[in-house]
Amino acid sequence: MKLGEGVEAAIHCAAMLAGVDGAATMPGAAMAEAFGLSPSYLLKHLNQLAASGVLESVPGPAGGYRLARPAERITLLDIVLAVEGREPAFRCGEIRQRGPVRLDASAYVKPCGINAAMLKAERAYRTALAEARLSDIVAAYQSDADPRSFAANCAFVVRHQRPQKVQPSKSER
Amino acid sequence: MKLGEGVEAAIHCAAMLAGVDGAATMPGAAMAEAFGLSPSYLLKHLNQLAASGVLESVPGPAGGYRLARPAERITLLDIVLAVEGREPAFRCGEIRQRGPVRLDASAYVKPCGINAAMLKAERAYRTALAEARLSDIVAAYQSDADPRSFAANCAFVVRHQRPQKVQPSKSER
Ligand code: FES
Ligand code: FES
Repeated sequence: MKLGEGVEAAIHCAAMLAGVDGAATMPGAAMAEAFGLSPSYLLKHLNQLAASGVLESVPGPAGGYRLARPAERITLLDIVLAVEGREPAFRCGEIRQRGPVRLDASAYVKPCGINAAMLKAERAYRTALAEARLSDIVAAYQSDADPRSFAANCAFVVRHQRPQKVQPSKSER
Repeated sequence: MKLGEGVEAAIHCAAMLAGVDGAATMPGAAMAEAFGLSPSYLLKHLNQLAASGVLESVPGPAGGYRLARPAERITLLDIVLAVEGREPAFRCGEIRQRGPVRLDASAYVKPCGINAAMLKAERAYRTALAEARLSDIVAAYQSDADPRSFAANCAFVVRHQRPQKVQPSKSER
């Protein structure tokens, strides 16, 4: 079992975007620089986050990305599913039906117990991810990370964020 | 996130092996037939299970596979880790250290909070898998599955299992 590497980048970017001022945006290229990633690689994942409503992508010269809602309402599950897709990790191929003894379909109405047990474990995983809010991640970083690293990150955000002209977004109108 | 397809086959085989009589074995080819899988594909996974001590592989004319310990002491976690490896699904590449501002290593002594949160969720997943014993899976199958399917499986096991000459295994000597 393996999560794509994009998950690490996606969560770090979301955490960084939680630090911009107000409606400011951050260009994808700046985030790629912050984490030593190729911009095209990162853009793919930023766009996945935008497509699933975790980020907002703002076009134009002051464009970039920002959180689509407050960090309190974004969870690690939102981010993981945006990048990895919503399908369960365990995918039942109904191999119980592939054997030499062919019973008719009515014998397989109930889902396979093995599938059920695997999906139950995945629910536990997703519940734990859903309990980890982006705001908690950021608060823990603020209180636990080395102060030099925290200061360097703040300085990076201040340097690269792009303030927006005062123009209320749709949801605020 | 995706588990390999081998997991489904491995759990089904282990559940089938829980049904053999005493020390009898079941050839890999028979299990491949039971689940409509290519024998070489399945052998790979059966050997992974043997390598991690979930199954025992018995050589010779009455050879095949059997559980290495009672089904009460085998969990879905044992099987998933045997097939998928023990590494966590989330693998931190320390991207926090890859940015343009290079702090010295002492700034990164504490593990990244994002990594910690992801691993915490994986612990929840593994705990749930560790709580699902193979014996529970088999008992649920016995009580919940369609009786025709249960009967067909039992008949298959009876037809293909290979009784062993009475010869205590090392651990019983
Ligand atoms: S048939 Fe797919 S898990 Fe049992
Ligand atoms: S540096 Fe890897 S998860 Fe933060």
